[in-house]
Amino acid sequence: MSEYARRMKTMEESANIIKGLFGTMNDPGMISFGGGAIAKECLPVDKIREIVNDVMTAEGRGYEILSYGPVLGARDLREVIVKDLLAPKGVNADADNILVITGGLEAMYLMCQLYIEPGDVILVESPTFVHSLETFNMFEANCIPVHMDEDGMCVDDLEAKIIQHNPKMVYVIPTFQNPTGRTLSLERRKKIAELGSKYNVIILEDDPYRDIRYSGEDLMPIKAFDKTGHTVLANSFSKIISPGSRIGYVYANDDIISKMSDAKSATNSHTSLLPQVICAEFFIRGYYPEHHKLLCDVHRERRDAMIESIDKYFPKGIKRTFPDGGLFTWVELPEGLNTSELLKESTSNPEIKVAFVAGEGFFTEGNGKGSNCMRLSFGANPPERIRIGIERLGNLINSKLK
Amino acid sequence: MSEYARRMKTMEESANIIKGLFGTMNDPGMISFGGGAIAKECLPVDKIREIVNDVMTAEGRGYEILSYGPVLGARDLREVIVKDLLAPKGVNADADNILVITGGLEAMYLMCQLYIEPGDVILVESPTFVHSLETFNMFEANCIPVHMDEDGMCVDDLEAKIIQHNPKMVYVIPTFQNPTGRTLSLERRKKIAELGSKYNVIILEDDPYRDIRYSGEDLMPIKAFDKTGHTVLANSFSKIISPGSRIGYVYANDDIISKMSDAKSATNSHTSLLPQVICAEFFIRGYYPEHHKLLCDVHRERRDAMIESIDKYFPKGIKRTFPDGGLFTWVELPEGLNTSELLKESTSNPEIKVAFVAGEGFFTEGNGKGSNCMRLSFGANPPERIRIGIERLGNLINSKLK
Repeated sequence: MSEYARRMKTMEESANIIKGLFGTMNDPGMISFGGGAIAKECLPVDKIREIVNDVMTAEGRGYEILSYGPVLGARDLREVIVKDLLAPKGVNADADNILVITGGLEAMYLMCQLYIEPGDVILVESPTFVHSLETFNMFEANCIPVHMDEDGMCVDDLEAKIIQHNPKMVYVIPTFQNPTGRTLSLERRKKIAELGSKYNVIILEDDPYRDIRYSGEDLMPIKAFDKTGHTVLANSFSKIISPGSRIGYVYANDDIISKMSDAKSATNSHTSLLPQVICAEFFIRGYYPEHHKLLCDVHRERRDAMIESIDKYFPKGIKRTFPDGGLFTWVELPEGLNTSELLKESTSNPEIKVAFVAGEGFFTEGNGKGSNCMRLSFGANPPERIRIGIERLGNLINSKLK
Repeated sequence: MSEYARRMKTMEESANIIKGLFGTMNDPGMISFGGGAIAKECLPVDKIREIVNDVMTAEGRGYEILSYGPVLGARDLREVIVKDLLAPKGVNADADNILVITGGLEAMYLMCQLYIEPGDVILVESPTFVHSLETFNMFEANCIPVHMDEDGMCVDDLEAKIIQHNPKMVYVIPTFQNPTGRTLSLERRKKIAELGSKYNVIILEDDPYRDIRYSGEDLMPIKAFDKTGHTVLANSFSKIISPGSRIGYVYANDDIISKMSDAKSATNSHTSLLPQVICAEFFIRGYYPEHHKLLCDVHRERRDAMIESIDKYFPKGIKRTFPDGGLFTWVELPEGLNTSELLKESTSNPEIKVAFVAGEGFFTEGNGKGSNCMRLSFGANPPERIRIGIERLGNLINSKLK
C-alpha cells in the first residue's frame, strides 16, 4: 500500500493517547465531567426550529441556503459577529476580515496551513488544549511550553522563549482557559499584543469561552490591543449556541484572511450554510440577550456546585482553580497519584462510574508532567449530579491516600 | 510578520489563476455556464423544512443534533449511504467504513493529509477538476497528467506512469468527468482497480456525478472491482440534494478510515450535524426516488438544450463531448483561439454577458495546454436561457474566426 505521510505516525500516537485520556464518555450511566459540552438545557431547540421554518422557504432564503455560498461565509453572519460579538469587546472589525469556519478548531488547522512547516515552533501555554495540540502535531510543529500561573501565560517566560526559539506562532487561550479555567490578566493581554508586534510573531488568540462569564469583570481580548495586525482572533458559536452546528470564525488582517480563504477553499470549499444562517438569525431576531442570561445562570450554578463539592469531598491540600466563566476547573492532586490510572478505575468501577480528562495530555513536556492533574467540566451535568459525581470521585481519591 | 509556509506561495498563484478562469459569476444579468451547480428547481426546500420541523424538537432529535457528534458522522446517514447509495452500485460497505465529511472536496484534502509529502506524485487525468488541483497544490504534490480519450483515463499510459513515477495516489473522476463529461469504460474501471492492487498504489475515485445519469447504461464504480482495499471512494450529496449543505463521504478500508478520522478530528472535529440528519431523513422518508427522477428529467432537458445549441450555433469543426450525465460538456475550439481572452470579452461585453470556465486551469502541463478549451455547465440555467447564452457565445466565437 502507498506509504502514509510522516505526519500520520505522530498523529496516530497522539490520537491514541487522547482516546485514553478521555475514557468512555458515551455510557449513559456514567457521570461525565469529560467533554467540553454546554448544558443541554441551554441548546435553543425551539428557536432554531422556528428560524428554519421561516427561512427555509422558496420565497425566503431556501434556495440561497441550499446553493454554493461564499468562502468567507454568509454576509449576515459576518455582520452579526462584527456588531454583536466583537464591537462590545472593544474590537472594531470589518465584515470582510471575518472568515466563518467549520467549528472553532478549524482556526488552528487553517493557521497551521498558513504558517507551519515541519519543525516550526509554536509556543503554547503549559498546560493547553489537547485537541489543538493534536492539530499542531498533524503539521509536525514543535510545541514549546510557556509557564502559566494564576494570571495565565507568564509574559517574562514568553518573551524569553520568543527570543530563544523564534516561533512562528504563540497560541494562547486567554479567557477561562482550557484546561485550567484561568484568565489572562489585562496587563498581560496588552503585553502579549505588544510582544507580537515587537518580535514580529503571530499571536493566535483562541477565545471560545469568553462570552460565558459568571463572575468577575469582563476583559478585552488581546486583539483589542493589537496595533500591527499580528494577533489573529479565533472564536466559535459552540459554547453560546450549539457545538453540533460546527460554526466558528476568525478575525485577522487582510492578507491573513485572504490566504486563509484560499486554504479554506482548498479544504472544504466553505462552511455549511444552514447552520450559519441559524446563528445569524438567532442574533438578528434578538434572541441572544435572554439566551445569554440563561447560559450564564445555568452554568454559574453548576460551577458553584462543582467547586463547593470539590472543597467538601476532595482531600484537603489539593489545588483547584476557580473559573470566572467557561466550563472547566483544574485539579492538582498530591504528587504520586496518577490520574490516568484513576480514570480507568473511576470509569470501570460500577460503584463509581465517573469520567474526567486525565491531565497528562495537556502538557507537551512529557516525563509524566501533569500526571497528577485532571480537568473537570461542569457544563454537561445538573448540580445534583455534579455533587454525586464529585463525592464518588473524592471518595476514590481519598481511598488512594490512605 | 511570521513567514508563511512555502505551500502558501504555490497556493496563492493557483488561487489567482482560478479566480481568472471562473470570471465574474455573481452578476445576476450574466448567463453563467461557469459553476458546477445543479438546477435551483431541484433543491428540495419544502421537504427540508418539513424534516427540520419534525426532528428539531426537544422530544425528537433536537438535543442530539445540537450537541457534539461522532467523528465518523451520524449513524443513520452512514447507514443510508451504505444501503441506498453504495449497495445499488455493487459496493457492499459497512457503515463503520464510511466517514462523513464537510463536502466532497474534503476527501481530497484528507487523502493528502494521509499520504502527501512535498514532491510526492499524484497521477491525474488530463484535464482534471481544477479545485482538486488546488488542494493537491496546497500539499505541494507533484501532479503528473495521464492521457484521456473518449473512454476516460488511458490505462496503458496510466500503467507506464505508475512504473515511471511511483506515485502515492491516482486521482480519477470516472463518471461524467469534471471537466470533460466523459465516462470511464467498464473495462478500464476493472483495469484501474487491478493496477492499484498490482502496483500497491492508492486509487482515489471521486464520483460525485454518478447518481445523475440521463442516458446510457449505469457502470459500477472502480471500488466495486477493488479486491485489496487500494481504492478509496469519495462522493457527495452536493449534486443530489444540495451543495450548500456541504455533506460528502468517503468509503475506504479500516486502516485508512481510522487514520482519516484522526485527521478529520484534528481539522474540524466533525461535520455539522443538522445537514447530516437532513440528508439521512430525506432517504429514510422515501423522498429520494421521486426527487431523483426530477433531477434527471430537469438536467437531461438542459443537457439536450446545450448540446443542440452548441451544434447549431458554434462553428463547424469544433469538438464537444456528449455527457450521459453530470453537469458538464467540454468544448475544444480551433487552435489559436484563447478561451481566457474570450471569457474576458464574453463577460464584459454588455451585449453578450455569458460566463464559462476557461480550459487552461484544468491541465497541469502548462505551456498553454487547454487554452483553446472551455468547460460549459448546463446545470444552473433553464433550457431557454441556455439557448440564448450559447447563441451569443457562438456568435462571438464565429466573429473571431473571420
